[in-house]
Amino acid sequence: LTFQVTILGSGSATPTLNRNPSAQILCYENECYLIDCGEGTQVQMLRYKLRPGRLRGIFISHLHGDHYFGLIGLLTTLSLGQRTDELKIFGPPGLREIISLQLSYSDTRLTYPVDFHEIATPDAQTIYETSHLTVRTVPLRHRIHCTGFVFSEKPRKRSLLRDKLPDELTPEQIRLLKEGHDLVLEGQTYPNAAFTTAPPLPRQYAYCSDTIYDEALAEHVRDVTLLYHEATFGQELAERASKTYHSTAHQAAQIARLAGAKALLIGHYSSRYRDVTPLLREAQAVFPNTRLATEGETYTL
Amino acid sequence: LTFQVTILGSGSATPTLNRNPSAQILCYENECYLIDCGEGTQVQMLRYKLRPGRLRGIFISHLHGDHYFGLIGLLTTLSLGQRTDELKIFGPPGLREIISLQLSYSDTRLTYPVDFHEIATPDAQTIYETSHLTVRTVPLRHRIHCTGFVFSEKPRKRSLLRDKLPDELTPEQIRLLKEGHDLVLEGQTYPNAAFTTAPPLPRQYAYCSDTIYDEALAEHVRDVTLLYHEATFGQELAERASKTYHSTAHQAAQIARLAGAKALLIGHYSSRYRDVTPLLREAQAVFPNTRLATEGETYTL
Repeated sequence: LTFQVTILGSGSATPTLNRNPSAQILCYENECYLIDCGEGTQVQMLRYKLRPGRLRGIFISHLHGDHYFGLIGLLTTLSLGQRTDELKIFGPPGLREIISLQLSYSDTRLTYPVDFHEIATPDAQTIYETSHLTVRTVPLRHRIHCTGFVFSEKPRKRSLLRDKLPDELTPEQIRLLKEGHDLVLEGQTYPNAAFTTAPPLPRQYAYCSDTIYDEALAEHVRDVTLLYHEATFGQELAERASKTYHSTAHQAAQIARLAGAKALLIGHYSSRYRDVTPLLREAQAVFPNTRLATEGETYTL
Repeated sequence: LTFQVTILGSGSATPTLNRNPSAQILCYENECYLIDCGEGTQVQMLRYKLRPGRLRGIFISHLHGDHYFGLIGLLTTLSLGQRTDELKIFGPPGLREIISLQLSYSDTRLTYPVDFHEIATPDAQTIYETSHLTVRTVPLRHRIHCTGFVFSEKPRKRSLLRDKLPDELTPEQIRLLKEGHDLVLEGQTYPNAAFTTAPPLPRQYAYCSDTIYDEALAEHVRDVTLLYHEATFGQELAERASKTYHSTAHQAAQIARLAGAKALLIGHYSSRYRDVTPLLREAQAVFPNTRLATEGETYTL
């Protein structure tokens, strides 16, 4: 089952000719979600041939413009395209009011239902669940109400060791084995481990942008497969990072290390860095398995 | 004195990989104004090296997203760039509320004052004036409250025929001549026309988007130097044009002819037209001096 993330925007603050503001597409098989939606995101989706019609939901971290100014345009474009499927939107208080106000002044009634969920509390909570995924929020410390998101694959069942199985087990016995129960046959108990192996560890993608360096964050993203953590600045601007409630590449890597993440993806680069390899090196010095968020690239978990 | 318009967006409804939604920069010498501001306009300004810091004012025709979704991003980018000069914004009722709401949720206080003028009445009226220009509104017939704008150069003074002037005129006599008065010398009156020639006719740029075909419009843009009139569709879709309160290229040309415009610029093309030369030919059949609005091109009046 494929689980991947495509970067549509890797910049911060304001769009430039080289970088778009924050936006990512996460797909678990055919379930696709948009995470943040800076200005120009709909054109980025066209550029990378990611059909917006496939989106089931949109997650907005906070109401700084570089994370949501593209949302109203995307929503109206979906409507012009005659979408009829419900769209879920998760975002901070205020987002619904902003969108509704704009739709109302343009006298637009969307062709599809929007199921709006305001994330009112900063506490970590599960906000969404499908048969494959759960999404929980992560409290981030930024200048305004800001939440990260962890997309977790649901635990899969144990795998059967077909050649070890006794003949003629009932479907019920098979089900119990997959769920980890021991096998009871003619009054005798055989340990589950003799017939099954553990499923792969559930994969988890954590999206953390924007945030000041905050060690408390590590607990919320413990052991994730891939941690996206903003790295707006290099360590030479650590003071500026903390003043603006952003992080450095070094700090992003420290959080990845503290959390025991398997891999780190950094992004949300300040436009002062034309070349972001110094940010990569800075992070890799602390957490070697770091990659740069690059627009148009897909990262597989 | 240069008077020119640069096209930043020529498409309609939704941004695509080839076309941006409506936005134009009008400059009279160093006085620059933005007319409409679809999503991505700030990046278009970067692309064509038009510094947004130079803008004195922004004119928004109506609250369909392809005409203003880029405004909030541009305003916050100007603030991130530490602009301090006042910015004037003219737009329909609701625009101020939308912008204020977004600034308030992002806890943003702009670094510069905004002088907001809501165009509350659809009637034609003069809304802005500098030493060189006046701007008046044009009522357009669209699905929602929509106004066009005419940017008119102020009448210039008469030009002196230096070699015909008597010696030793006083500055006061010169001023009177330039204003068109006859010359009175030692009790005798000499006709003004002997010493001056008429100034060039004041140039006028009319921006009309979006509108259904409306012959009443011609009166409002009579004799303008350059008429921008939307041409969303070709005449084969005249019915669709009228149903959606848009115009065809043929209809745009008819308005230009009725108005006695010197030249016509068409734009706001439906994304169904990859190649817009058929729209150009259609308009030129009625009004030969028609040009296509092309992104990045500058049209001199």
